[in-house]
Amino acid sequence: MKKTLVALALTGVFSVAYAQSSVVIYGTLDAGVSRRTDTDVTAVGKRDNNKLGFRGVEDLGSGLKALFQLEIRYEPDTGVIESTTRPLFQGQSRVGLQGDFGTLRIGRALTAFQETSTAFEPWAGMPAVAGYQTDLQVAGYTSDPLSPAGNSANRFSNAVFYNTPVIGGIFQLNVTVGTKEAANNPVIIGRGTATLPQFPANTMAPVNPYSLSATVTNGPGAAYVAYERNAVSTKLWSIGASFKPIPDLKLMGSYQRQDQDYSVPINPITKAWLIGANYNIGAGMIRAGFGQKTPDNVLNSAAIAKTKQFSLGYDYNLSPRTYLYIDGTRKKLTPAATFNFYSVGIHHNF
Amino acid sequence: MKKTLVALALTGVFSVAYAQSSVVIYGTLDAGVSRRTDTDVTAVGKRDNNKLGFRGVEDLGSGLKALFQLEIRYEPDTGVIESTTRPLFQGQSRVGLQGDFGTLRIGRALTAFQETSTAFEPWAGMPAVAGYQTDLQVAGYTSDPLSPAGNSANRFSNAVFYNTPVIGGIFQLNVTVGTKEAANNPVIIGRGTATLPQFPANTMAPVNPYSLSATVTNGPGAAYVAYERNAVSTKLWSIGASFKPIPDLKLMGSYQRQDQDYSVPINPITKAWLIGANYNIGAGMIRAGFGQKTPDNVLNSAAIAKTKQFSLGYDYNLSPRTYLYIDGTRKKLTPAATFNFYSVGIHHNF
Amino acid sequence: MKKTLVALALTGVFSVAYAQSSVVIYGTLDAGVSRRTDTDVTAVGKRDNNKLGFRGVEDLGSGLKALFQLEIRYEPDTGVIESTTRPLFQGQSRVGLQGDFGTLRIGRALTAFQETSTAFEPWAGMPAVAGYQTDLQVAGYTSDPLSPAGNSANRFSNAVFYNTPVIGGIFQLNVTVGTKEAANNPVIIGRGTATLPQFPANTMAPVNPYSLSATVTNGPGAAYVAYERNAVSTKLWSIGASFKPIPDLKLMGSYQRQDQDYSVPINPITKAWLIGANYNIGAGMIRAGFGQKTPDNVLNSAAIAKTKQFSLGYDYNLSPRTYLYIDGTRKKLTPAATFNFYSVGIHHNF
Repeated sequence: MKKTLVALALTGVFSVAYAQSSVVIYGTLDAGVSRRTDTDVTAVGKRDNNKLGFRGVEDLGSGLKALFQLEIRYEPDTGVIESTTRPLFQGQSRVGLQGDFGTLRIGRALTAFQETSTAFEPWAGMPAVAGYQTDLQVAGYTSDPLSPAGNSANRFSNAVFYNTPVIGGIFQLNVTVGTKEAANNPVIIGRGTATLPQFPANTMAPVNPYSLSATVTNGPGAAYVAYERNAVSTKLWSIGASFKPIPDLKLMGSYQRQDQDYSVPINPITKAWLIGANYNIGAGMIRAGFGQKTPDNVLNSAAIAKTKQFSLGYDYNLSPRTYLYIDGTRKKLTPAATFNFYSVGIHHNF
Repeated sequence: MKKTLVALALTGVFSVAYAQSSVVIYGTLDAGVSRRTDTDVTAVGKRDNNKLGFRGVEDLGSGLKALFQLEIRYEPDTGVIESTTRPLFQGQSRVGLQGDFGTLRIGRALTAFQETSTAFEPWAGMPAVAGYQTDLQVAGYTSDPLSPAGNSANRFSNAVFYNTPVIGGIFQLNVTVGTKEAANNPVIIGRGTATLPQFPANTMAPVNPYSLSATVTNGPGAAYVAYERNAVSTKLWSIGASFKPIPDLKLMGSYQRQDQDYSVPINPITKAWLIGANYNIGAGMIRAGFGQKTPDNVLNSAAIAKTKQFSLGYDYNLSPRTYLYIDGTRKKLTPAATFNFYSVGIHHNF
Repeated sequence: MKKTLVALALTGVFSVAYAQSSVVIYGTLDAGVSRRTDTDVTAVGKRDNNKLGFRGVEDLGSGLKALFQLEIRYEPDTGVIESTTRPLFQGQSRVGLQGDFGTLRIGRALTAFQETSTAFEPWAGMPAVAGYQTDLQVAGYTSDPLSPAGNSANRFSNAVFYNTPVIGGIFQLNVTVGTKEAANNPVIIGRGTATLPQFPANTMAPVNPYSLSATVTNGPGAAYVAYERNAVSTKLWSIGASFKPIPDLKLMGSYQRQDQDYSVPINPITKAWLIGANYNIGAGMIRAGFGQKTPDNVLNSAAIAKTKQFSLGYDYNLSPRTYLYIDGTRKKLTPAATFNFYSVGIHHNF
């Protein structure tokens, strides 16, 4: 580093230019006030993920580019990273190449399914209580079950990520393949016993987890199909579509089916579907959605709840980068509680 | 993120310009060598807080602006964040709007009292041993008593922050209000018993903590009055003033009174006062201060120390952003130890 | 911060310019796929350290400059910082001045020996399994034995760093001196007993650790000699040299001797040597090395292994900032296992 600094001292201007040309700082700070009707406290929280990221693209000539991205996730109300069991760069840490062959990256990020599906959900994949991604759209599925408790449920670490180019202007295939490396999971009994658990602590994955998604975009319509198999051989498939009858209105819906038969003795199947809409009106946008999640034999087990969710939201754009929002949602869990959730806040991209 | 990167690849220049126009990176790196006369080790430490921050302002038109700020705090001698129990963005994490109505932000930051009072202290609120903010100026008061041990004592998390505009060019009111959200505190017996503590672990605050400060600035003079009530109903009020008889000399003083009657069975009252001066001389500045903190019934309890502190410091400015400093202070604790503390170091803003 | 933001709002452009002129963001993202022949898993990992850094140089006039540098280290395959026991700014956190007198900095960073020796190792100090720095070149030596387990083995915290200018265009002396401050080490029995360990937990260093290195660079040749003594009085000396018979070929070698007599009852002496070469060919570079590490009385102790390592690597430069690489190495531990290690990946500087 000494040498670097000396060089820097001699060529400060160049060094600065160099940095500016290779790193883009970006992020989101979203904070608001919310209330859950089954609690008696008004809370400060978020609607969207909060990000502080660093990314860059280097043109290598002849259409080839090098890409990197590092993304910190944090909680705006307390200033902590998303969870003490999550990485500093929870959002993603990836590096790779992009060219005529597509985009090939290595590191940690959302799986092909998790990333693709967010475009077919009225809250665009935001983890808002009013949104559908976290719970319904993924049918309660976990992409990374062998991580420590509290770690991300929709990312692969130690993975290779490939996206084809957009073929014929309409089609794209996305592939994510993870290694079998152990990720420090706690004991998971699964189909085993307390003394002989199916997945002991820090198990090496019995299979390579992988995720596939294919998207078709044609004029006002778009659709995807995805299949994912995680490290404990839970299988999920999902389909979804969106359509714009008029430019200001986007209708969308998706269906997913999760099969945990390899590791769950009862209720291995979970099905979920949702429909939603985004409608641009003046400087604002209305978000609306309805969906439900149904584990099998739900009536046989109070622990396995059927979920119904209806949500309405409104964004008021102060600029292309900043908007105010208000959300309202009603969540009905059977057999279990029903509650409403309301929030109002500000969403700022930088 | 894929889409973002593709877009970035296509419009690298714009993306960079975009980033530059919306994010300012700033910080402080302050490190020095120090010695306490009651220890036999020379230490590497700091005089000021060490910061690495990211902030931005977006002009929304018609006088409205969106603001965000994220600030990492760290220790320069070891490279760690300020404390393992403190958030990554310990300095602050806030987002909000500024306009004719003033500034309204949400997130985590210094309370109105803690932020305002630093301008009336000869070390400008620096946590230096020679400084007065941490111990005397706040009368040993803690703004956030229901946080984990070791967490910040002068910030609110889960709070809303409002500052009026500067009215008539002289007056400003600042308000901070926190929620009752539990913040994972350890058991606090308070006026309860070991078996029935007044504040069990992870208590939800019985009241909304809040902080108020008002400042008046008129020519060479300035003054403030502040009142704060924290989550365990400790009440603090404080007044302070500064005056510049000549441009190069700033005289200042403050008085504060803390009342812990709600949670402390004995010695609930703590009073503190300080006087100080900053004098610009050539490329340097002399800092001087004297103050004391007096818990009530101090003689009845060896555990409750009366504190007297006298400090002298000198800054030598190498540039508007960088200075060298030397501090000397004598701290007398009754009944307890007396020690001197000396430090010399460098303070660099970037 | 309020004031700052108001000021920023009023002078956004200046504030941005200010930030750009004082902070350079830099880093490395290196990730690849690897395989060890004595394991049955293909892993995603790294060849080089992964960095995200912030540095700056301020011209103070008359040849004087202020320098700062903060460097985050992380794992690209999982997005975590290098180790939970390592600081956020594991790479370094330093601030100081540079002038005719040389460079004087304070904080945490590599010791003079550890930093200098990397230029005489065919993998340039990268922690790659194929590289020689971590294990052989430092003879298994630890610069910071009184830190918590898992912390960095080649840095001083709480230290002062001095580099002379390059004298006569060929000679430079580098000095690092640490304080005796306790760094939270676990119990180290050393030459003591379980009940009376030589170094109890959180021991204050009995001596000030220090590190010295001197380098001579003359045309195609360069050489160094270094001596370091750590906080438990382990002594290490090392010499190395490099020579370029032709511009595209760099030959190098080094020898080091570690003496742990003060804290290790048996096998206190460890010797190590290595030879290596870098050869530029077209857009690529070949790396080759051979070396061994020999603890004394190795045959008397299965726990003390003799290590022999042969490595071959190739970098293919896609640009001055980005290259692809492939490494192969054979590591023979006596008495113990022998394994081969292969990796292929991408290295991107930003």
